Amino acid sequence: MGKLLDKIEVPQDRFEIRLSGSGGQGMIFGSVVMCEAVGKSGSKKVVQSQSYGPEARGGASKADVVISDNEIYYPKAMKLDLLLAMTQESLDKYYPDLKEGGMLIVDTSLVTEIPTDNYYGLEFTRLARKEIGSIVVANVMALGAICALTDMFSKEALTDAVLGRAPRGTEDRNKQAIDVGYREAMALKK
Amino acid sequence: MGKLLDKIEVPQDRFEIRLSGSGGQGMIFGSVVMCEAVGKSGSKKVVQSQSYGPEARGGASKADVVISDNEIYYPKAMKLDLLLAMTQESLDKYYPDLKEGGMLIVDTSLVTEIPTDNYYGLEFTRLARKEIGSIVVANVMALGAICALTDMFSKEALTDAVLGRAPRGTEDRNKQAIDVGYREAMALKK
Repeated sequence: MGKLLDKIEVPQDRFEIRLSGSGGQGMIFGSVVMCEAVGKSGSKKVVQSQSYGPEARGGASKADVVISDNEIYYPKAMKLDLLLAMTQESLDKYYPDLKEGGMLIVDTSLVTEIPTDNYYGLEFTRLARKEIGSIVVANVMALGAICALTDMFSKEALTDAVLGRAPRGTEDRNKQAIDVGYREAMALKK
Repeated sequence: MGKLLDKIEVPQDRFEIRLSGSGGQGMIFGSVVMCEAVGKSGSKKVVQSQSYGPEARGGASKADVVISDNEIYYPKAMKLDLLLAMTQESLDKYYPDLKEGGMLIVDTSLVTEIPTDNYYGLEFTRLARKEIGSIVVANVMALGAICALTDMFSKEALTDAVLGRAPRGTEDRNKQAIDVGYREAMALKK
């Protein structure tokens, strides 16, 4: 990163999340929805951002969410507290940005090589196909899992936010996706 | 703004855009699509961001896009080069952030009090209802107008970006909305 960054003081209360995957996996939708769910869940500040560069044409897609008790002057994620990787490519690309001790959540139906033993693995894409009949909701299922694994937002706030933005007619399968993701992640915690 | 801001050098080549309106008017969708359209149109860097705070519950909704030749270290818009205001409330709230000489675009079907004579006024919501039969596409129509009034992105890139994100079955009315917005803005320029 450039020298400008060195000047910016980063408050210690920041929590930085990156959702990453391939272009069609709905990571931007996921980050917009997560931003709203966090906002609806409490008094913290939250900012969502994404950039579109030449890399987006390749395949890896990412969107960031930053949560803080204080005003967020610098909305880009730098040292991730939580990384969701839906593909091998996105894991390879963004794993170096994960903090030591940060939470890694991986779609193990698509990712096979994971550079650590310290992660939560769930087969979001396979589960979405098998249980809901559509891989399109794998992103929402991952949000359900993040809801179970962290205290950033409530399941109610997540459901509200997803249903407020999802196309009409997809309500049921989105609700189901949240439930499955939540349930499977709770099972991992035990 | 807080003191942290004073430390951040802002490159002169930045172009800052804010899309503002009420919660249901699709300003975040608009900013995500604009970000992609700019990305597809050339070699500039582009970042889209939005925050969710207590103000989002009221009614005013905003999303920012920052475009630069250089790496964008600070993705929040501060002094706007372009402000789209779809409601009176959002105009009142964000007009003070518009640069002197910045471009103001207003939905004149909903906004009546405009604090300057230097603006582009188009009745996006009324036109969307009248010509397309749905006010939902007023945001996309506004993007069509911005496409005509600036050189940030091509009409083709905008259409690609919109159709890539809009729900299936809405392709025709989104294309139409872009066309109407583009056409009406071109008429203003003459």
